[in-house]
Amino acid sequence: LAGYFADRLAAAIRDRGTCAVVGIDPVYERLPAELAAAGGQRPTPRRAVDVIGTFCRGVIDVVAPLAPVVKINSAFFEAFYGAGVDLYYDLTEYAHRRGLLVIGDVKRGDIGSTAELYARAHLAPPGASGVDPARIPDAVTLAGYLGRGAVRPFIDVARETGKGMFVLVRPSDPGADEVHEYAGADQTRFYQFMAARVRAWGEGLVGECGYSNVGAVVAAKDAESTRALRAAMPQTLFLVPGYGAQGATAESCRACFREDGSGAVVNASRSVIFAYEKPGATERFGDDWRGAIEQACREFVADLASMFDR
Amino acid sequence: LAGYFADRLAAAIRDRGTCAVVGIDPVYERLPAELAAAGGQRPTPRRAVDVIGTFCRGVIDVVAPLAPVVKINSAFFEAFYGAGVDLYYDLTEYAHRRGLLVIGDVKRGDIGSTAELYARAHLAPPGASGVDPARIPDAVTLAGYLGRGAVRPFIDVARETGKGMFVLVRPSDPGADEVHEYAGADQTRFYQFMAARVRAWGEGLVGECGYSNVGAVVAAKDAESTRALRAAMPQTLFLVPGYGAQGATAESCRACFREDGSGAVVNASRSVIFAYEKPGATERFGDDWRGAIEQACREFVADLASMFDR
Repeated sequence: LAGYFADRLAAAIRDRGTCAVVGIDPVYERLPAELAAAGGQRPTPRRAVDVIGTFCRGVIDVVAPLAPVVKINSAFFEAFYGAGVDLYYDLTEYAHRRGLLVIGDVKRGDIGSTAELYARAHLAPPGASGVDPARIPDAVTLAGYLGRGAVRPFIDVARETGKGMFVLVRPSDPGADEVHEYAGADQTRFYQFMAARVRAWGEGLVGECGYSNVGAVVAAKDAESTRALRAAMPQTLFLVPGYGAQGATAESCRACFREDGSGAVVNASRSVIFAYEKPGATERFGDDWRGAIEQACREFVADLASMFDR
Repeated sequence: LAGYFADRLAAAIRDRGTCAVVGIDPVYERLPAELAAAGGQRPTPRRAVDVIGTFCRGVIDVVAPLAPVVKINSAFFEAFYGAGVDLYYDLTEYAHRRGLLVIGDVKRGDIGSTAELYARAHLAPPGASGVDPARIPDAVTLAGYLGRGAVRPFIDVARETGKGMFVLVRPSDPGADEVHEYAGADQTRFYQFMAARVRAWGEGLVGECGYSNVGAVVAAKDAESTRALRAAMPQTLFLVPGYGAQGATAESCRACFREDGSGAVVNASRSVIFAYEKPGATERFGDDWRGAIEQACREFVADLASMFDR
């Protein structure tokens, strides 16, 4: 095994002094005025991709010294077809060159042979398709609802290359409760059942840091149920979505961590990358959208730090 | 609503006289010798994509007069990054020009704002990104495990454009039973619970044919449980995977249909598109891989027809 994603992540968190993850979910219609003007009102997909690329590289430049990880959301790039997908991989390489780890937020989940191809696309086993390894994320998000077979090809690549994954256990959207709060015959909820699966899938892939390369996406909901998940998955890294725009606060995130402060990374997307839209931002930063994003990123990092003092 | 996918599908099934769906899951290493020689042993992604494109267009040419629908599996194209994704859309357009309906097999599933972008990418609301509508599939496969919010953006596009979707209810891989046979407190299995969700999501989108634009992926397992699903989702079109290579037979598929023979389409992928690999195929067809695929497609259609006679 070529190192563990979990160990590389732990080292990066120590180095930057924060477990903040900045999510890159760019929307053309929300780009800073300067970039929107350059792209025009009804750009071709390729023109839109050029401008979005400029914006995302700007975000990465700002974030690189402050945070250990960026999460790049595939959907926002797939919306621009092949050119958008190429940009997704371009940005992965760009972030790597800036010293960031990259989580590819792809949420893929399919059966056997199809899962193998998804693993090839998104974690790229060595030499699979003549692609530069720097263009491939260090970890991906996955849906595990089709069972171990859907995840195994990713685990196989992880075993070979030391890459990682975060499997959906408890999504942040309240609408997902419709399925995840489904009550099982054994008094467990569906998300608790999925937690047990993910814990099992991650055994044998635990790094020196004490965590597995198979992590979980766990939204910070009420503290009690979150603490129960933390206890049920002691060696599982949590990727906590929903900070900022989706409503999770630093306080509700605390239960995702072990007492020693390890065990989770926390993602904020829109509240950071669209910070120039906030009330007062124009007065303070004018056209300096990078400055507004930097300020929001620093506040996000400070807020996470403060939760360990409370 | 600009027509119903369910009605267009019903018309195409009547026209071709079969509910056969041919799944396009191309694998570079399994291409016919003639094409593999043209591509070389370690092709660049772009070179591989060229050769795979030639193969897939050949498959579509053969299938177009025989079947109403092709299902194009995104994973097999994503494995070649942006160039592969462009080919996925190229082939969608090519199949449309040959008079086929196209199901984009993408199995996407994510929360709210991300789901909106996935819907934009994969069902393309009119004018969204300056893309030619012929390049966009008529329907997609989805994962509904994140609840109604994950499916709603697709339903919104379906309402506006008459497109369709098939939501995973019972995958064909036995490994998926690990999750789908999870027993609920109310004596239902998880797949039955999902069936009830999908039925509810499809209400209000029922076409003249009596079926909704929100269909379900339902593997043909034992006849009894399949009949129960058919009864539980009376207005839901089933996309039945796993015919041929994945083990479902025409007989086990019968329970997916209403008595009148409507209500399902049945997919075969590898058993048709790789038919030239079968024992005896070289003796019979020589290098004529198109001939072998045509024969396999005709046998698939005949086998489906015969199940209604038994």
